[in-house]
Amino acid sequence: MPAAPNGLSPRAQAGEASPAIPFGDRLAAAVATRESQVVLGIDPDPAALWPAALAGMAESRARLVMALGDVERSVALDAGRGGRAARLEAAAAVLAHCHGLIDAAGPACVAVKPQLACFERLGFPGWVALEATVAHARDQGLLVIADAKRGDIAGSALAYQQAVFGGLETPHGASPGLGADAVTQNPLLGRDALAPFVVGARTAGAGVFVLVRTSNPGAADLFDVELATGGKLWELIAGLVAAAGTPGPISGLADVGAVCGATVPAHLARMRELMPCAPFLLPGIGAQGGAVADLAPAFAPGRAGGLVSASRSIANAHETAACAPAEAARAEAERLREQAWALG
Amino acid sequence: MPAAPNGLSPRAQAGEASPAIPFGDRLAAAVATRESQVVLGIDPDPAALWPAALAGMAESRARLVMALGDVERSVALDAGRGGRAARLEAAAAVLAHCHGLIDAAGPACVAVKPQLACFERLGFPGWVALEATVAHARDQGLLVIADAKRGDIAGSALAYQQAVFGGLETPHGASPGLGADAVTQNPLLGRDALAPFVVGARTAGAGVFVLVRTSNPGAADLFDVELATGGKLWELIAGLVAAAGTPGPISGLADVGAVCGATVPAHLARMRELMPCAPFLLPGIGAQGGAVADLAPAFAPGRAGGLVSASRSIANAHETAACAPAEAARAEAERLREQAWALG
Repeated sequence: MPAAPNGLSPRAQAGEASPAIPFGDRLAAAVATRESQVVLGIDPDPAALWPAALAGMAESRARLVMALGDVERSVALDAGRGGRAARLEAAAAVLAHCHGLIDAAGPACVAVKPQLACFERLGFPGWVALEATVAHARDQGLLVIADAKRGDIAGSALAYQQAVFGGLETPHGASPGLGADAVTQNPLLGRDALAPFVVGARTAGAGVFVLVRTSNPGAADLFDVELATGGKLWELIAGLVAAAGTPGPISGLADVGAVCGATVPAHLARMRELMPCAPFLLPGIGAQGGAVADLAPAFAPGRAGGLVSASRSIANAHETAACAPAEAARAEAERLREQAWALG
Repeated sequence: MPAAPNGLSPRAQAGEASPAIPFGDRLAAAVATRESQVVLGIDPDPAALWPAALAGMAESRARLVMALGDVERSVALDAGRGGRAARLEAAAAVLAHCHGLIDAAGPACVAVKPQLACFERLGFPGWVALEATVAHARDQGLLVIADAKRGDIAGSALAYQQAVFGGLETPHGASPGLGADAVTQNPLLGRDALAPFVVGARTAGAGVFVLVRTSNPGAADLFDVELATGGKLWELIAGLVAAAGTPGPISGLADVGAVCGATVPAHLARMRELMPCAPFLLPGIGAQGGAVADLAPAFAPGRAGGLVSASRSIANAHETAACAPAEAARAEAERLREQAWALG
C-alpha cells in the first residue's frame, strides 16, 4: 500500500514564474505514484464522529474553541441567538475527526474530496475546520478536490474560483483561497459561467469536474430530458465539457473532467465516447449502490481516467466490521483501491 | 423614505412552538411595511470599499484581525503559505464596508442579498464578515436572501440547507446556520435535490428562489435549449418551481420563488403565466443593463411579486455622482425604490 507523497509541489506553494503543470498530468502522475484511483470523500456528520480521533486532540480542540469564541465576541456574533457555542465545539470535533480519517484511509487514496456543505453548516468555525482539513490532506501528499458544486455568472463566478484556487488581489496583498487542486462545478448557467473556473484552474495547474449526470433519482428530471435536436441534456453538457478541456501533454488527460454518477453504469461508455480525454469523478460507490466492477469504460484513457469516490462506506465501515473506525476505514479504502487498480 | 423595521420577528429568534409564518406572507408584509421592493445586493470587492466606512471602524477592525489571527495560529493555518495576513485585513475591511452600505442604502430596501462568493473568497475570515453582515442587516429590519446558488443531492442538500436555515443537531446542541430568510438555489440536480431546501425553508418560515433563467449571455446554452416535448428547459424548471411552492394564506405568494434575469424582459410574462404565485427575484438591474420599467409583469400577484435587485449600481453610485459613496448609494437606492413602487 503506497503511502508516499505524490512528489508534486502543491500549486499553492509554487509561486514560481514557470507555468503550472497541467492538471491532467499532475493527476496521472499522482495516481501512478500512489497506485490508487480512490478519492476519500469527507462528509463529516457531527453526530457520527470517531471518538478516538476526538480524544487524541482534546487539547488542541479546546484551544481552537477558545480562539473561535474570541472571534464571535469581537463581532458580537455571540449575542442574541442561541446555539453558537454548539457549533464551535462541533467544528473542532469535526476537524479532529477529519485528521483521523485522513491518517487512516489517506494512504490508500490519491485524493480527498471534502463536501463543502458539511463544513459550511457549521458557519465560519466549519470553514476553519475545512481549511485545516485541506492543509492536512496536502501535507499527506493527497490531492484535494473541493466538492463545492458552485455555479454563478461573471464576477461571482470569478469570486468562487478565487475562493477555491486563490488569486484575489486585495490592497493588503493576494488572498490564497482554499488551495484545492480541483473543484466540482455546476454547468447550468452555461459556458460563460464555466469559463472563469476553467481559466483560473488552468493558471493554477488545477482542474474542474463538471456535473454531467449525478447519481440521485431526481437527476432524471433535467439531466435526462430529451432535446429537440436529439440526445439528452447530459449529452449536451458532456459536449461542453469536452470542448472546455485541454489535455495534458504527457498524460493526454484533460483539465476539465466530469462528475458521472456511478449508479447508472450504462451511461459510462457513452460518456467516454463524448468526452474521450476527461477524467471522470465517479461518486455513488458503496453507500449509494454503485459497484466498482461496472466502471471499466471510465478507465479507457488510463487509470487516472476514473477516480472512484467513496465517503460513508469508508468512514462508517466499522458499523459492519468487528474493529475500530480507523482500522475499518483503512481496510475498506485499501479494498476499494485494489479492486479499482485491478480494473484500470 | 420608510426606515422602520419590518416588524416581523426574525425566524431565527423565534424558537417558539407555533408554526412559522409562511415566507410569502412575511415577504408581502415586509414589502408593504417598508414600502420597498428593492433588494440590496452585497458583492464586496476588497479593492473598491468605502474609505469612510473603513475609517469609522478602525478599532473594531484591528480587534477582529487579531482574533482571526489567533484562530489561524491555533490550527497552524498561518504556516507555510503566503498571503494569509492579507485576507484577515481584507475580511475586516469588507465587514466595515458592508455595515456602511447597509446603513446608507438599507432604509430604502426590503432585503439584502449577500453574494456568498464574495465572502467565501476570503476563506473563514470572509465567512465571519458574512455572518456579521447578515446579523447587522437583520438588526436593521431587513430580510436576508443568501445568494448561494447551491444545489446538491441527499445528505449534502440537507447540509447546505442547514448551513443557511439552521437545524443541524450536534452532540453539543443545535447549530444555528446563517439565519437567512431565503436562499437562491440551482435546480439542475432535480426535484429530490430541491426538496430538502423547500422543506427546511418552510419549517423556518423561509423561502427558496430557484434559478429559472439567469441574465448572462451563456444562459442560452442550457436554459434556452428546446426540448423534444416542446418548450425550453427554463420553462420545464418553471413548472418544477410552481409545483414546489405553497402560497401563503394571506398574500397568496408562494414560498418557492424564481430568479429571473431581468435582462430578457420578454420572458417575464411567460414566467408569470407558468408561475402565477411565485415571487420573482430580478437581478440585472442597473449595472447589467436591465430597466425597471420592463418588469411590470412580475408585479401581477402584488408588489411583493417582483423584487428588484441591484448591487454595483448602488455601491458604486458615487463613481458617476458628485457626492460621497454613502450619500450616492442612499440616493440611488431611493431612486430605484420610487421607480419600482410606481410600477407595482
